[in-house]
Parts: sequence; C-alpha cells; structure tokens
Amino acid sequence: MTIYDVIDRKKRGQALSDEEIRYFVQAVAGGGASDAQIAAFCMAVLLVGMSEAECFALTRAMTDSGARVPRPRAGGVFVDKHSTGGVSDSTTLVLAPVLAACGARCAKYSGRGLGHTGGTLDKLECFPGLTVSLTPAQFEAQAERVGAVVAGQTAQVVPADKRMYAVRDVTATVDSIPLIAASVMSKKLASFADVILLDVKYGEGAFVRGVEDAASLAALMVGIGRRAGRRMCASVTCMDQPLGDWVGCCAEVREAVGVLRGEVQNDLAALSLDHAARLLRLALGISAAEAERRVKGAVASGAALQKLRDMVAAQGGDARAVDDFSLLPLAPQRALIRAPRDGFVRVHALPLGQACVLLGGGRQRAGEAVDHTVALHLLRRTGSRVRAGEPLLEVFHRGGAQAALGRAAEGFSVEQMPPAAQPLIYRTIEEDT
Amino acid sequence: MTIYDVIDRKKRGQALSDEEIRYFVQAVAGGGASDAQIAAFCMAVLLVGMSEAECFALTRAMTDSGARVPRPRAGGVFVDKHSTGGVSDSTTLVLAPVLAACGARCAKYSGRGLGHTGGTLDKLECFPGLTVSLTPAQFEAQAERVGAVVAGQTAQVVPADKRMYAVRDVTATVDSIPLIAASVMSKKLASFADVILLDVKYGEGAFVRGVEDAASLAALMVGIGRRAGRRMCASVTCMDQPLGDWVGCCAEVREAVGVLRGEVQNDLAALSLDHAARLLRLALGISAAEAERRVKGAVASGAALQKLRDMVAAQGGDARAVDDFSLLPLAPQRALIRAPRDGFVRVHALPLGQACVLLGGGRQRAGEAVDHTVALHLLRRTGSRVRAGEPLLEVFHRGGAQAALGRAAEGFSVEQMPPAAQPLIYRTIEEDT
Repeated sequence: MTIYDVIDRKKRGQALSDEEIRYFVQAVAGGGASDAQIAAFCMAVLLVGMSEAECFALTRAMTDSGARVPRPRAGGVFVDKHSTGGVSDSTTLVLAPVLAACGARCAKYSGRGLGHTGGTLDKLECFPGLTVSLTPAQFEAQAERVGAVVAGQTAQVVPADKRMYAVRDVTATVDSIPLIAASVMSKKLASFADVILLDVKYGEGAFVRGVEDAASLAALMVGIGRRAGRRMCASVTCMDQPLGDWVGCCAEVREAVGVLRGEVQNDLAALSLDHAARLLRLALGISAAEAERRVKGAVASGAALQKLRDMVAAQGGDARAVDDFSLLPLAPQRALIRAPRDGFVRVHALPLGQACVLLGGGRQRAGEAVDHTVALHLLRRTGSRVRAGEPLLEVFHRGGAQAALGRAAEGFSVEQMPPAAQPLIYRTIEEDT
Repeated sequence: MTIYDVIDRKKRGQALSDEEIRYFVQAVAGGGASDAQIAAFCMAVLLVGMSEAECFALTRAMTDSGARVPRPRAGGVFVDKHSTGGVSDSTTLVLAPVLAACGARCAKYSGRGLGHTGGTLDKLECFPGLTVSLTPAQFEAQAERVGAVVAGQTAQVVPADKRMYAVRDVTATVDSIPLIAASVMSKKLASFADVILLDVKYGEGAFVRGVEDAASLAALMVGIGRRAGRRMCASVTCMDQPLGDWVGCCAEVREAVGVLRGEVQNDLAALSLDHAARLLRLALGISAAEAERRVKGAVASGAALQKLRDMVAAQGGDARAVDDFSLLPLAPQRALIRAPRDGFVRVHALPLGQACVLLGGGRQRAGEAVDHTVALHLLRRTGSRVRAGEPLLEVFHRGGAQAALGRAAEGFSVEQMPPAAQPLIYRTIEEDT
C-alpha cells in the first residue's frame, strides 16, 4: 500500500477500506504524506465524496492520531455543544452556566476566532484577569466544583486534523462535507462528552452555504457520533444574519449576560436556551417540557447568572464584570450606517463579520491579537421596514475605520420587497429519531 | 485574484479565463503557488475537466513560463515526432535518419527512460563515445549538415511543467487528458518544429489505458498545435504489447538498425516507416503514395542507414557499431521463459517494461544509471499459438535476475481462446481532416 495508491483509488471513485484510510491518516500525522498528497486526497474526497462508513473510518483514524482528553473524575453527565462557526454566536457563554446551574456538567475546550467568525476563548478573555490556559488539574477541579469550565486545548489532540486543515485552508478544500464531519467529530471523539449537540450553520455567513448541505453534514456527524457510542443531537440553523444583535468580543459578552439576566429576547436567547434545554433533556433523562422549564427557571432565579460569576472567578477573572459593564468596555468612537433608501432590510453576516475583523476585533491569521472593545450593533434585522436615512448599524471603533465602515455597509441591503423569511432553526435531529 | 480563487472556481466546475490560467501558471513557475495548491488544482482538473479553450490557454501559459528553443538557421522544413511513451518504441532511431535521407530535417530534443518506458537518449548512448549533450551551436550545425540530430534539452524549457509534473507524479494526477495535453504541447510549442506527429499510445503499457481516452487526447493535442499554427497529425497506437520484439537499450538499437537495413519486418518497422511517410508528406507537400515510395527507397538504397552513421559520428559516436553489433553488446547470461501450457499467447507490455527496469536496464527514479546491455527478446507475440514448454521470451542478464524473471513471466499469459486482435494503429488524424 502506498499513499499514491490511496489517492488513486479515491479519485477513481472506489471505496477506501478502513486499513487504507488509517494508513493515510497515520502518514498525515507522521509526515510520510507530503502536503501535495494531502491536498490531492482532500480535493478527490471533495469532488468524489465518501460513504458514511469511510467517513467514520477517517474520523476514528484521525482521533487515534493523537492524545485523548482525560475525563474529569467528577460524576454526572458531561455535555458539549459544537457550532460550525458563525457571527455573533455566543451561545456557549449562555449554555455552560445554564446547564451547570441545572445539574449537568459543561466542561469543554473551545477555540479562538478566525476570519469572519468569533471564538469563545476571545470572548471569555474580556473578563479582566480571566485565563483560558488551565492545567488539566485546574480544568478537572473546576469541572467538579463549578460544573462549567471553558478552556483552551493543551493536549495534542488530533494532530492529523491540524495538518490536514492547514492544507485544506489554502487549497479550496475546506467545504467538503465528509472532511468537515471528520475534522469536527475526530476532535469530539478525542474528548469525553457523553451528550453532544451539534449546531450546523447554513447561509451567507456559514462555511456551508446550502441548507441541504448543512442538513447532510448534521446527519453525517450525528451518525458518526452514535457509531462511537455518544448521545447525539443536532440543529441546522440560519447564519444569513448574525445570531445576536452585537458583533465584537466585549459586546457579545454583554449580550450573553443580558440573556442570562432574562433581559435579552432575541435569536441568540432563543437558540441558546433551546440548545440548553435539549442537552439537559438528554443529560438528565427528563421530558422536553421539563427540561425547558428547568432552563427557564435557572435564568429566572439568577442561578445561571451566578454560575457565570463562579466560572469567571474560578478561571481568575473579575466576576464583577457580570454586573458592571464598565469592566467590559466598548471602543470610544461611534459611527452609524444608515439606510440608503426606503424598503425592507436584509442583513448579511459575512461582511459584518469581516468588518469586525477590519476594526481589529477579529483575526485574519491565527495568533494575531484581538481588540475586544470594537463592536457592531445591529439596529435592524432582516425583514424590518426602514425609511431612507434611518440608522441600521452602530459601529464602535478607535478611528481610522473607513475600510471597516465600507465593509459594514455591505452588511445591509434595502430592498423593495420583504425578503423571504428564513427560519432560525431549519431542522433538528433528536436522539430518538 | 488569488491562487485559492482559481482552484475554487475550477473545483466548482466554472471555466477559467485566460487571465486566471496565466496567473496560476506564473505562480507555479515563480513559486507563488505551493505544492499543495498545485496538487489541488491538478486533482480538480482531473476530476472536473477542462474545455479545449482552457487547455489551450494552459498550454500557452506553460510555454511562456520558460525559454524558447532557438530555431536552427538551416532552411527546409523541421519535423518532429512525439510518443506518449511505451515499451520497445525506438521509432525515433528509425525516423530521424529516414526523414533526413528524404530531405526533411529532424532536429529534436528527446528524453530519458523512466519507469517501464524507455527513452531515446539512453538508447543513443549505446553507441560508444556518442554524446547527447550538445551545445546550441553543435545542435544547429548538425541540423544543417546532417539533417538529423537528437539531443538532451539544455534550455530551461517550460519550468512550470517541470514543477507541475513533479507534483502530479506523486499525487495520482498524471492521468488527466488536459494535463497530459498541456504538458506535451507546451514543450512542443516551446520548440520550433513546423510539422509534428503525435503518437498517442493506449493499452496496458500506456499511461492512457483506454483507446477512446487516447483518441480524445490525440484530438485535443492536434487542436492545440493547430491553434498555435503548427502542422499536426497523430496516430493512436496500441501498447498492449511492446512495439518491437526487443526491450533493452542496445537490443533496441540493433532492432532499429535492422529496420533501416530492411531486414526487420515487424510492428516497429511498420509504425516507424508509416510515421516517416506521413511526416514526409506534410513536410514536402507530396502525396501519401509518393511519400511512402521515398521512405521505402531511402531504406532500400541504404541512404537512411548512412544518415544514421553520419548522425552517430557527428555526435562523437563510433558509427562502426551500425555495422558491427559486437559494439552494441548484450549481457552474457541467458534465461528462457517458457509457456506453462498449450494455448494462445497474450503479451503484456507493462510487466516486461518493469522486468527490464529490475534487470537494471531502466530507472525507477530520474538520474539513476542504466545498464544498456540487458535485454528481453520476445519470441512470441500476442495471438500466436504455443505448446507447453515452448520458449516465449529470452532474457539477457548479468545474474541475480530472479525478481526480473518473475516479473517477465507476468508478461505472458497463455489462454485457451485466441485473444481479440487489437489493431496496431487504431486511428490516425491527418492534416486535412
């Protein structure tokens, strides 16, 4: 068997055996396959496809290419949520304290923002003093004592994915459903969550544009997780416009706190609490109605907000920020984007996410610093009626923001006819389907 | 425009513009594209395809990536022949002196053997003292004085192809019709031949297995050459079995000399003289019948054989070898492969070519030395009837040839029914079609 043969067979449309896939992945992780061979393989998979069995084998082999995340000794059920990435998606900041307040454990490793999408770690770091660099012992202790912990990955998890993703990123091979599924699920299977909710985004601001592609991806990933013995559910959700009404790290933390206070009623609140209830139902084996009741109760009682304070404090952060937004500052200069004409608004997540990056609030390349204070505030959402000159977006910046403002303006079109309504949640996959 | 965008558009099945293709090829030659990006592009082209217009643009851009071969000042018409590669194909050794003897000029750069296929330069070097490393001035002088010269390329012709081929070779992206066409034709267009015959091989020992794929490749390359103003013709010929009856450098030179002496009447002789007549017809503007008459006359009169002597001598070689085969020695040890049963023979070019490499008579990797003296002599060809124990192949080796003999035995199957006859020449494309 050679790497060449594996690529050749896939390109000819032949199904790869478990052994062939494992051989290839070991060569990716071990260096026996060149970047060019990885690129050719990924393009062949993108264009020819993979069966679910092949994708499962790819996922398992990728998981086995590195270390496993040790399961904290705390009892109870560990839940996890994974989003395929979007704009103004701070559901994790809501979910984790709500679930911990309801008796499930949400101990997860999360990522940083890249390109137009934000990352939970960057948002958490808005709390003064908070660290996401926890030792395994600290992570475990917080999982037990608080029940909610979100940190940066330290273990060498799925090195094969790291190398494959770096190649895919520059070779136009990111948008392959089986490759995305294997990348996401290999990392999930390397970790210890018992119950996993996958939030697969579709639309203009998502990596998978088409709703049916997103639904296929969700079904494939749920199938892989179940084959590996995990309890899985998924949502296919719209990312045509940002999920919340704010884009930018501090602003998104403020908005998530608003949801936990029960003050914010928007798509972010609806989706975060829906995710939380569905995970809780599976974790505790209760009815959907009971799970929803408990989630609402945790918000109404302030228990969820207290869990956020506990979580921030446990990671060394200043929990007073939860109650004092002056500790989560916004950039001092403001600018408005106004409607150029009368009509109906359509919001576009991608240019808004890009505008935030141009303001310094995101990163083009891994490792770049992020300005937590810059922000975009959506004053109108898709479908709302405006008159020419009315404000659509408020931008919080530090000056020199011309390029960002130009891009932000592309985030809105004002049309004569109301746009077709896209449901926030297009489809869900429940455990018992 | 970015390399990523070009790959992405091709992968989505969109036609690339001339500018996009030129941008990509310049990045290949200039280093702006990574090996991974080249591999992804090639795999996308292999699986999605390219229009003739795109392939022409790719070819032209590749040609423009390097130097042009200067046209010798000698008058007359320059002819060239290109084969896509096979086993026991020494047609160039026959063609070049025949055409020069008939008044056309055959001044060409040729290649070395690689893998199971032989190369003209290795065969020419069997003549004691002969060099294929000619200065441009030497090449030009011989083109004028002898009319026949075959040398190794010195100019930096088509660097983009060199880099792309190195990537394709390890990523299972060699067998793409548009990529093969662009690779072959970019080098032809960088050179100066007025009339070009393309010999596109199909079958077990060819890079393109299917006859219809080979016919498509031939038509595509002829179209590209004509768009660039060259006079083109092509043959689609069978490479299920070796073309001649001998495999190995010195042995193939002996066989080609036999054709020029008029002593050898086999597929090699038929194809070489057919190629020569078709090129001569186009070069001199004479009828097919007249061209055939002149080619036969050049062999019968000994004029072609004398041209070979002149050509060898002009390149510093010992022309006595043309008449004294002891100067073209064969390896001293002999072994026979015998028929395992009664039946009808089917010969397989690929294992025979590989057996020659295992004997040391070819190379696995560029730069390896080649033993000119080892040889395989086909005693039977496809379709002939044998009895168990009768010899099929004689192997000339230097000992320790077990692996090679095993592979050589795979070069013959003996079947109960006579195999379907494959025509040597499946199709030709003439100038006036």
